[in-house]
Amino acid sequence: MAEGQPRLFEAVPNFSEGRDPAKVERIAGRVRAVPGVRVLGLTSDADHNRSVLTLAGEEEPLLEAATALARACAEEIDLSTQTGEHPRVGSLDVLPFVPLEGATLEDAARLARRAGERIGGLGFGVYLYESAATAPHRRNLAEIRRGGYEGLAARAGEEGWRPDYGPAELNPALGAVVVGARPFLVAYNAFLDTADVGVARDIAARLRERDGGMLGVKAIGLPVAGKAQVSMNLVDLSKTSLPTAVERVRELAAERGARVESTELIGLMPLEALLQTARHHLALPALEPGDVLEYRMRLPDRPSGTTSGE
Amino acid sequence: MAEGQPRLFEAVPNFSEGRDPAKVERIAGRVRAVPGVRVLGLTSDADHNRSVLTLAGEEEPLLEAATALARACAEEIDLSTQTGEHPRVGSLDVLPFVPLEGATLEDAARLARRAGERIGGLGFGVYLYESAATAPHRRNLAEIRRGGYEGLAARAGEEGWRPDYGPAELNPALGAVVVGARPFLVAYNAFLDTADVGVARDIAARLRERDGGMLGVKAIGLPVAGKAQVSMNLVDLSKTSLPTAVERVRELAAERGARVESTELIGLMPLEALLQTARHHLALPALEPGDVLEYRMRLPDRPSGTTSGE
Repeated sequence: MAEGQPRLFEAVPNFSEGRDPAKVERIAGRVRAVPGVRVLGLTSDADHNRSVLTLAGEEEPLLEAATALARACAEEIDLSTQTGEHPRVGSLDVLPFVPLEGATLEDAARLARRAGERIGGLGFGVYLYESAATAPHRRNLAEIRRGGYEGLAARAGEEGWRPDYGPAELNPALGAVVVGARPFLVAYNAFLDTADVGVARDIAARLRERDGGMLGVKAIGLPVAGKAQVSMNLVDLSKTSLPTAVERVRELAAERGARVESTELIGLMPLEALLQTARHHLALPALEPGDVLEYRMRLPDRPSGTTSGE
Repeated sequence: MAEGQPRLFEAVPNFSEGRDPAKVERIAGRVRAVPGVRVLGLTSDADHNRSVLTLAGEEEPLLEAATALARACAEEIDLSTQTGEHPRVGSLDVLPFVPLEGATLEDAARLARRAGERIGGLGFGVYLYESAATAPHRRNLAEIRRGGYEGLAARAGEEGWRPDYGPAELNPALGAVVVGARPFLVAYNAFLDTADVGVARDIAARLRERDGGMLGVKAIGLPVAGKAQVSMNLVDLSKTSLPTAVERVRELAAERGARVESTELIGLMPLEALLQTARHHLALPALEPGDVLEYRMRLPDRPSGTTSGE
């Protein structure tokens, strides 16, 4: 990385309040108040009783934001009385850091450890996961979250399940925070031209890595608005690209007599996903970020390049 | 447009020196010295004896850059002794302005008129073209350039062909500059799996608007490195998008027993061309610039949005 180029990260904190808009706004407001942090999104789900913030910024501002957020969650949320459909282990529940421009997954893991140490200092149990995990059996969020807060609290004193930071005896009002680093995740859905959710579930089972499908793909089949939907997380675009995943859904749908009617992006996609799509569908292998006008305008001047004359 | 949002433009000046690198660098250096102007590209062609600069910036810096460039061309190039394969009418020859973020084609036409007035004041004849043209028969660059400098000089005193700015009796050392405004142009080539350039020429003839093909498409067939190439300019992506044009080339190639092996971008494409490609090939009609992470990070904070949780 060039000296002086900023390292940008995304942070996607999930916290266990999604029903009281005033509380959510007070919590989010503490993050907005941190200079140098961009709030790219905030969504709340009342059934899940859970909210998700999408933040972007450099390391120090994000560290401040993470600490401010943990303090706000400690003040506003009592996990011991909180209920919701979504599994959770803490009032501030999950805190992944994602490398963006100029940053590596290593950089994000270091940021996660620094944030974890600070949040542990506030009285939360902290478990590092994915690229920041300190043991293989603690990499997977689902493994850490198994049994929810109650399950984790029961094994937090055991060898192999002590928190990376904070007290081994979890505080029931705060709980634990799962802090980690992972590559950018693209949440992407394909709507089929059938109401038969069995078709979507069948396609999802063939797609997902866990069941021997495509690397870096998580998928489930769901009924959505009367249609069968294949809901995907693409967790490593360098292993399986967006256009490759969609093409495979189309193939698997065709084998089952169905068709992809439309697709849907949830949240954001990186420019790389668009470049992959153009490379794949336009047979344009050489396409790079610097070929995109809006991106190029933010890069340092390049003295020579190809230009079309008139 | 929101108050205070900068209006960005591209300028793509073509000047009649492409053989003497020292001269080209002196001319380009005068543009680089203007604060607020980004030099995105510079290419020179010795056969054409012509160079093309790609600049980006706001109105006032680009106006300064255009004037500095005209002065430098007047000092460094003597059109009366210049020769090259490419048709030309001036030492600074063509100067299109292109609206980028925050700017409209109208804004670019106003900038072209302001630049034209200044350049006319330096002793060049100035002809406004495309969206800045002052008469329908002067919209088309090829019409203004017909007969090269000599042809234009011969009719510059006639009714309907007087310059918009500068002397009607053209100065043979300076010549005329064709200054205008146009939408962003994507220069795009498709390589066929045949050496038969007749196939490429035939496809190009079916593609181009002038011969009843697709709106906003210019195309020619060429032999390039032993392959037949369809070379396109997409001059209005809102009329014909990049993926639509490529798909049509594939269809026309298939009808002639040929195939598109690969494609090639010359210069830059706007983000919109990538979005069109994803909308088209992923059946994702709702995709917008704000859905792209790197772009969204430069937009003002949006307090709520869709985010995927974990």
